[in-house]
Order: sequence, then structure tokens, then C-alpha cells
Amino acid sequence: MIEQLREAVCGLHAELVRYNLVAWTAGNVSGRVPGEDLFVIKPSGVSYDDLTPASMVVCDLEGNVVEGAHAPSSDTAAHAYVYRHMPEVGGVVHTHSTYASAWAARGESIPCVLTAMADEFGGEIPIGPFALIGGDDIGKGIVKVLSGHRSPAVLMQNHGVFTIGASAKAAVKAAVMCEDVARTVHVSRQLGEPLPIKQDDVDRLYDRYQNVYGQRSSR
Amino acid sequence: MIEQLREAVCGLHAELVRYNLVAWTAGNVSGRVPGEDLFVIKPSGVSYDDLTPASMVVCDLEGNVVEGAHAPSSDTAAHAYVYRHMPEVGGVVHTHSTYASAWAARGESIPCVLTAMADEFGGEIPIGPFALIGGDDIGKGIVKVLSGHRSPAVLMQNHGVFTIGASAKAAVKAAVMCEDVARTVHVSRQLGEPLPIKQDDVDRLYDRYQNVYGQRSSR
Amino acid sequence: MIEQLREAVCGLHAELVRYNLVAWTAGNVSGRVPGEDLFVIKPSGVSYDDLTPASMVVCDLEGNVVEGAHAPSSDTAAHAYVYRHMPEVGGVVHTHSTYASAWAARGESIPCVLTAMADEFGGEIPIGPFALIGGDDIGKGIVKVLSGHRSPAVLMQNHGVFTIGASAKAAVKAAVMCEDVARTVHVSRQLGEPLPIKQDDVDRLYDRYQNVYGQRSSR
Amino acid sequence: MIEQLREAVCGLHAELVRYNLVAWTAGNVSGRVPGEDLFVIKPSGVSYDDLTPASMVVCDLEGNVVEGAHAPSSDTAAHAYVYRHMPEVGGVVHTHSTYASAWAARGESIPCVLTAMADEFGGEIPIGPFALIGGDDIGKGIVKVLSGHRSPAVLMQNHGVFTIGASAKAAVKAAVMCEDVARTVHVSRQLGEPLPIKQDDVDRLYDRYQNVYGQRSSR
Repeated sequence: MIEQLREAVCGLHAELVRYNLVAWTAGNVSGRVPGEDLFVIKPSGVSYDDLTPASMVVCDLEGNVVEGAHAPSSDTAAHAYVYRHMPEVGGVVHTHSTYASAWAARGESIPCVLTAMADEFGGEIPIGPFALIGGDDIGKGIVKVLSGHRSPAVLMQNHGVFTIGASAKAAVKAAVMCEDVARTVHVSRQLGEPLPIKQDDVDRLYDRYQNVYGQRSSR
Repeated sequence: MIEQLREAVCGLHAELVRYNLVAWTAGNVSGRVPGEDLFVIKPSGVSYDDLTPASMVVCDLEGNVVEGAHAPSSDTAAHAYVYRHMPEVGGVVHTHSTYASAWAARGESIPCVLTAMADEFGGEIPIGPFALIGGDDIGKGIVKVLSGHRSPAVLMQNHGVFTIGASAKAAVKAAVMCEDVARTVHVSRQLGEPLPIKQDDVDRLYDRYQNVYGQRSSR
Repeated sequence: MIEQLREAVCGLHAELVRYNLVAWTAGNVSGRVPGEDLFVIKPSGVSYDDLTPASMVVCDLEGNVVEGAHAPSSDTAAHAYVYRHMPEVGGVVHTHSTYASAWAARGESIPCVLTAMADEFGGEIPIGPFALIGGDDIGKGIVKVLSGHRSPAVLMQNHGVFTIGASAKAAVKAAVMCEDVARTVHVSRQLGEPLPIKQDDVDRLYDRYQNVYGQRSSR
Repeated sequence: MIEQLREAVCGLHAELVRYNLVAWTAGNVSGRVPGEDLFVIKPSGVSYDDLTPASMVVCDLEGNVVEGAHAPSSDTAAHAYVYRHMPEVGGVVHTHSTYASAWAARGESIPCVLTAMADEFGGEIPIGPFALIGGDDIGKGIVKVLSGHRSPAVLMQNHGVFTIGASAKAAVKAAVMCEDVARTVHVSRQLGEPLPIKQDDVDRLYDRYQNVYGQRSSR
């Protein structure tokens, strides 16, 4: 089980590279080990080209290394905090993707003006607090904003994006879609004000997408 | 015939990826089966890497699955509506490409300020209505705007782009060119107002491009 | 000689793709056959993936096809006009690259605010007239603007870029650098006014770059 | 030792290409030969595809060629000046990357509004003077600005970026991160004013990143 998850988490980092969400060694993916108080996460400061399943690090929910020759991502404490406090979460992703981080630097949430946003995020993508790395402040900010919120993504002020999902893959998808809509809404607002979508329509789109879209087997 | 079309439609999705028109599983291409009331379309929620000719879905013009192990694209109803009401259409493409969707989010058509727009679109790229997925509203909006219009592309408000063509390949070309001119006109307007092209010149450019350009065999 | 030039011109189209200067089949490169009143140019409407040395078309300086199974680029008349009237030109390139075309759509030349512009273009990149395809108007506009001008690139109003060079490769380099500086100056002007470079310094940079830079063998 | 450095410096140029920091032959990387008054640098005007370890040029700290069949980069004098005056520097990189050069063209430093900037640059990325190529003016400008400054990157007015590092790889990382934050802060400022980060927090982030981040072996 852990071996499969090492492989999956390792492979998902290639999606961050493919969608230009990360520069150098920034950004990281983790996945919860089903049925155990453990998660698998990227090693710290290792190049995306050099990642292998074996180099992934297994941590407990306090962020302590349980298995692995490398130090875990410097964002491990934030991932661990999310897993501890949101039992429904099976995957966490962190990036400094350009457009999402640009909204984050202004401390602004992204308004829901695209049907694709209503589908995936159920409304706006919310802004979280400024928090320093090194303790539980980032994790607390993520959990406070995302608990009970439809959006699987939060923009952490002056920092970047954290996304969650039922699996590591779902969290990666949320990170990809977050940057995609952050960019489109940014571009749209550069030349005027995007038209709002009525809350009623947002609700219908969100409900439909969560319940109908995609192949049964791939949900 | 259907086997060839499955292969063609499958392969054309790679162009959406190559030109960065799609993120994750968004976007879809379909092609009408010549001489039959059928079309071939992308399966729903399947990754672009995993598409194969065999995974394409064959539908009738009501959007019912006739052949295929997967559920068809969630945009199938819109494609079907277009094929039912525009017999000259042999291919339909849908994307959320960034710049075109940015114009769509503001509810603005793209003015014709580039000779390449006059060539391919014969004038502005028009804006269509806001419409919810799940019935015929999107299809009706596309057909209403594009019937009798020179442009093979319509920007659906707050949503994205639909393009049509005599073939699936022609519709893909229109989607590629739509994003290209959406981006160039956007960039141009960021620092001032682009110069208009006289209607007379637009007409001459459109006429020439439709009748002279390209190899005979590739039209 | 012609065989070598077919191969070189064919291969240089890959640089247009690599630097994202072209979408679909837009854009073309040509090269003059040394010592003969002929040039080699891209066939019309053929995909970049499908270009081969054999598919290149050989034309005389009136633009008539001398050798080749395909129709030549729809911009052949403009290339031919340049070769007829500028004997020092060995290569011509045409693109609709995004940022250069955005300046062209506003009818604005690009001011020289980067040392790299002074190096390659010797000052601003000038704007040429609006001209319809189908006769010698585009060619005349290019030649009128570039004759005696330091810049190897001209922005044709509402259209795109034409570049010239001593060889096809030099013209491709000019097209790549034109888009690069068009983008950087655009981005710079988005948040304020770039600082001008004194004419004296522009002159010194241009002189040095034209006479000192690069390996002797590669000039 | 020199052979290994030739290989490393050659290979690092691929990172400039991968991150789109360079067009055509612009940009260059050098690395100091440990324990000797020598450095290895890119040859002038050679295409990135054609770079080989053997084509790298070895220079003394005055910029004279000691070993190598090619002329060294036209920016060799600036690299040499830095190595002569900053003994702690083991690598130097120069690019005209788009967003960093856009700030440079306005003569503006990049304000520290991202935690990733505080991490890597310890505050703003400073602006250096306008300086002509051909003597020691560029080198002097770099050394004057970066001596005693936390930032490993300086924006040279109307020109581009120079970065330094303990190794060539560290200088390349600084060039990659410089463009990344230059772009994000630019995008953020397009739609309003990014929120400042308190100096105290910048200091804590910088201190932590310099001392804790990454695998011990990769520092």
C-alpha cells in the first residue's frame, strides 16, 4: 500500500511541472496512507527530475519521519496539520503558481465568474491569513478557511496555494484548476469587470459537477 | 469509416494540448460520421494522456450513446444540438482557453483588428448567451449565434469557446486561431486602442482566404 | 546548392515553432539561392509537422513556382518583392507572433529601451503601413520602411512582422528577437514608462554588436 | 576538476532554456574553478543546442582566454570583474529574462511581497546602474550593488539580470527564482497593490530558509 502511494505521489509531481505550477524545487504533493496515521510527501529541496518513489518520505501525522532517507518537504508541518484536523482529506498540494500567488499577494479571493470555477470550486477561491513557516500557523490557516467551505483551494496571503482532495490526485487537479481559473479571471479583469454568475446558477453548476461529471470509475 | 473517425478525433485532442487550450480533462472534440446521423466524441473526465481511438464514444444526434464503453463528454448535448440543427457542420470543438474565456467572462465579442481575424473569422468573434449545462440551452445559444455568421467560433458568456467546421480538424483549427487572436487583441488593448480595419478590407481578406489559401488537397 | 537550402529553410521553421511565434500554419521562412534569381519558401497551408525539404517550393523573383509540387506560401509575393528590391537580403521571415502583432495592431513602433534592442535592431522597431495581401502592397511597405533602416524587422499595421537578414537564419534570429523585445517592452510599459536609452549609447551598442559579437565563423 | 566544471557549466545552460529565461544565444553561465584564478564560461554566439563541455571556454580573472577554441561570452568581462572582487562567489549567471528585464527597463527594484522572495532574496531585488558593455562598468555596477546585499540578483537598468551564488548551480537557481518572482509580483501589481510583508517577518523567513531548507547534501 505504501509502495503504491510512494509511486503515485512521486508521479503526481510531474503534473505540477507539466502545468508550470512550480519553479526549481518549490511545490509539493502528499497523500494519506489509507487506514493509517501516515502520509507520503516529497523530500525537501530535491529537483523534480531526481524524484523517485524511493526518495519520497513517510511521516506520521505530527510530521515526524517514519521512513525515508531524506528530510521531508519544509511544508510538512502544514500538510500534517491538515491531515490531523480534516480526516476526509486524502491528499494535499502546495504551489507558488504565478496567477494564484498574484491574487494571494494582494490578499484577494478570486471571484466566481467562470462556470468552470462554479464546477470545481463551488464559488470564489478564498484567501487565507499571512502565516510564517516553522510551526502550525500555516496549517491552522488552511484548516480554518477550508473547513466547511466548498473550495478545495485556499490562497495563503503573500505566499501561494494549498489544495486538498479525497486523494493526492484530486488535490493536484484542484491545484491545476486553481491556477487555470486564477489566470483566466486575472486576464479578464485586466480589460474591465467580468460579469458575475448568479448564486443560484453557481449552486446548480456545483451540484451537477460534483454528482454527474466524469466516469464512475475515475471519481 | 467510424474507425477512421475515432482515430482522427482522438488524435486531434493532442492539438488542444499542444496549443495549451485545455487544463486537466477540460475541452473536447467531436466529428460527424459522414452520411450517418452519428458523431464521435471524447469520453467524459478521461485524461488526455489516456485517450485512445477505442475510448472515443459514438453518439446519435440526440446525444445517446450508440457505441463505446465510456460515458460521453458532459458537453455532448451541446455538440448533438449543433449537429441536429446545422447539417453543414462536420466537427465541433469546446475549450476554456484562457484569453477567449477572459473575453467571454466580460461578455464581450472580440473586435476584428488583425488581418488574421479577417481571414479566418471574417470579422469579430461574437459573444453568445449565458447558458446552464444539462439541457439544450448551450446548443441553442451556439446555433443561434453562428447560424448565418461568418465566424466559426462563439464565446459563450462566463464559460468558454465553441467552434464549428466542415470537419473536426477545421473546428480544431478555429479553436487554435480563436485563442491566438483572443490573446493578441487582448495584449494589444492593454496599452491602448487597436486600429480598426475597414469593413471593405475585412470583406476582401475573408473572401480571399476562404477561396485561395492553402493546398487544394488540404481544404 | 538548392538541396542544401531546401533543408536549411525547412529546418528553420522549427525555430518558429520552438519560440511560439506561429499558430497552426501561419508564418513562413524563405531563403535566396546564392547567385541565382531564385528563392526557396514554405508551401502554403501545410502543417509544421509535415514540412520536409522536398515539400519546400522554389520560386523565381516574380514569385512564380519553378520547382515543387505544392503551392507556395500565400505570402510569396511579399518575399519576392523584397528579394527583387533588396539585393543584400538573403532571407525573409513572416510571423503573426503575439506581442509584435499587438504593437502592430495599434500601429505603434517599439521604442528602444533595452540594450538587447540596441544590439540587434539599432533603435526602435518601425511600423509599416496597412496593406492588403494579393499584390505588391505588402512588399512595397516592407522595402520602403526597411531600406536604409538599421532594423531588420518591420511591424506591418494590423498584420504581423516581416524580418530580413543576410541569410534565412539571420532573418529567423531577427524574428525571434523581435518577439522577445516586443514582449519585454510591452510588459515593462504595463506598469509605467520604461527609461529611454540615450541615442549615443544606442549607437555604441549597435556598432559593437554588429562588429564584435559571436564567433567569427557563425556570422 | 576543470573537466567536471566544463560539464556542469555546459549542463546548467539547459536550465536557462527549460525555464524560458533566454532567446536564441542570449544569456550565459560561468563557474569559478575551485582553488584557481580561473573560471569556465559559455562561448559567444553559439546556439544552446550546440553547446558541449568541450566548447566551454576557460578564462583567467582578467577575462583572458586560457583554454578553448571559441571566443568567450561577450559578457566575460563582467563575470571576471565579479570573480576578482567577490571571492565568495563561485558562479555567475546573466539573462535577459522577460519580467526581470521589464522591471529593469523601468529602473525599478522588485518589492518583497512574497514569502518566496524573503526566502531566496532576503528582501527586494535591487536595481543597478545603466552601464555599457565593453569595459568594467557592468562588473562594477554588479559588485557595488550586491556587495553586502542579501539578494543574489541585481537588475541592471535597461539591460537584464545578473545573479551570483556559491556555485554555478546556485547562481542558476537565483536566476530562475528571480524571473519567477519578477513575474508573480508584476502580475499581482497589474490589478492593485500587493500587500507588504513586515521587515521582521522577512528577516525570519530569510534566516530560516538559508539555514534549514533542503537536504544537507544539496546545499
